[in-house]
Amino acid sequence: MNIQSYPSKLLENAVEEFAKLPGIGRKTALRLVLHLLRQTENDVDRFSQAMIQLRHEVKHCKECNNISDTDICTICSNPKRDSSLLCVVENIKDVMSIENTHQYNGLYFVLGGVISPMDGIGPNDLKIDHLLNKIAMGNVKEIIMALSATMEGDTTNFYIYKKLKQYPVSISAIARGVAFGDELEYTDEVTLGRAIVNRVKFESTIAD
Amino acid sequence: MNIQSYPSKLLENAVEEFAKLPGIGRKTALRLVLHLLRQTENDVDRFSQAMIQLRHEVKHCKECNNISDTDICTICSNPKRDSSLLCVVENIKDVMSIENTHQYNGLYFVLGGVISPMDGIGPNDLKIDHLLNKIAMGNVKEIIMALSATMEGDTTNFYIYKKLKQYPVSISAIARGVAFGDELEYTDEVTLGRAIVNRVKFESTIAD
Repeated sequence: MNIQSYPSKLLENAVEEFAKLPGIGRKTALRLVLHLLRQTENDVDRFSQAMIQLRHEVKHCKECNNISDTDICTICSNPKRDSSLLCVVENIKDVMSIENTHQYNGLYFVLGGVISPMDGIGPNDLKIDHLLNKIAMGNVKEIIMALSATMEGDTTNFYIYKKLKQYPVSISAIARGVAFGDELEYTDEVTLGRAIVNRVKFESTIAD
Repeated sequence: MNIQSYPSKLLENAVEEFAKLPGIGRKTALRLVLHLLRQTENDVDRFSQAMIQLRHEVKHCKECNNISDTDICTICSNPKRDSSLLCVVENIKDVMSIENTHQYNGLYFVLGGVISPMDGIGPNDLKIDHLLNKIAMGNVKEIIMALSATMEGDTTNFYIYKKLKQYPVSISAIARGVAFGDELEYTDEVTLGRAIVNRVKFESTIAD
């Protein structure tokens, strides 16, 4: 269906709005909108109100920039977490991914992206100043850089590393290497090369 | 990510609502919701209002059951269309598909589905009585059955055919055969068998 002959302006409008979402084409949008049309008015109201409420009421945590229902998020305000550890990530999804591993008990800092000249994102577009202010306060003992294993991620790592050198804080980065379950045969050369260079003592790999 | 650790109840709520849509899992829902979160408040309001407005205000055409902004849809109320021709389809999308061919100038009748005992859909769940009333009024000269080429579609065709026999109306069905561009080698036996049995004179295939 190239030219859509919508039987209703309201339908067309709803489909156009849905098709603005990333990865949703007009055909999928139409399918989803017709599904909503078959639900009760209450169901559709609940769906729409959830989006409106989220956009209007959600906050960004003043400590870590993670999204939150309160001024300080549940992670930053949790006294059981180790506030001397700070894990720097790109976005909210990365926080959720690391939380789901249940292997980390420190705090986070959401940068809001990585330095990417190609996309016009420079250091000033990220929350790097906010991060430096946080470090300057002196509570944080170790920073764990957990950015994407891409050129942009490495650039950002290096930029932040240089800025942080003046502070008495230890800086580490998450380990890169052959993923669990991967076969060497199908691992790319860069990953495999780094995994050999950055090999770890055998004990530590089975310590957990 | 199996167990989601949402940093915000509002986010979790929005993701859960999105994940109720067919074919949208939690990961996709999260991606879409985070996209909405990056849009302006106006954009999100427009998106949500479009769904609410559609669900609350859209009507079903009293003539053909197609969805419409008015009591009678733009197709049924168009005096240029041939009201002696009635094409019976399953749903709204089928009307749009046929409209997009620009090959049909009659009216439609949306059944709302096909008879499917497996899914618990009987003749009374469809708008068959409404269709019979329309035919009984005597304006329609030809009915074109354009239901899916499935067992359920064929059953529904046959059911309606039996009900309509008492009326002086001619009943046809859309042609089934080898699709344009298909190779015989890859056409299934049922389709190819029917295409041979229901062969048409050569002139008519190139007449258009």
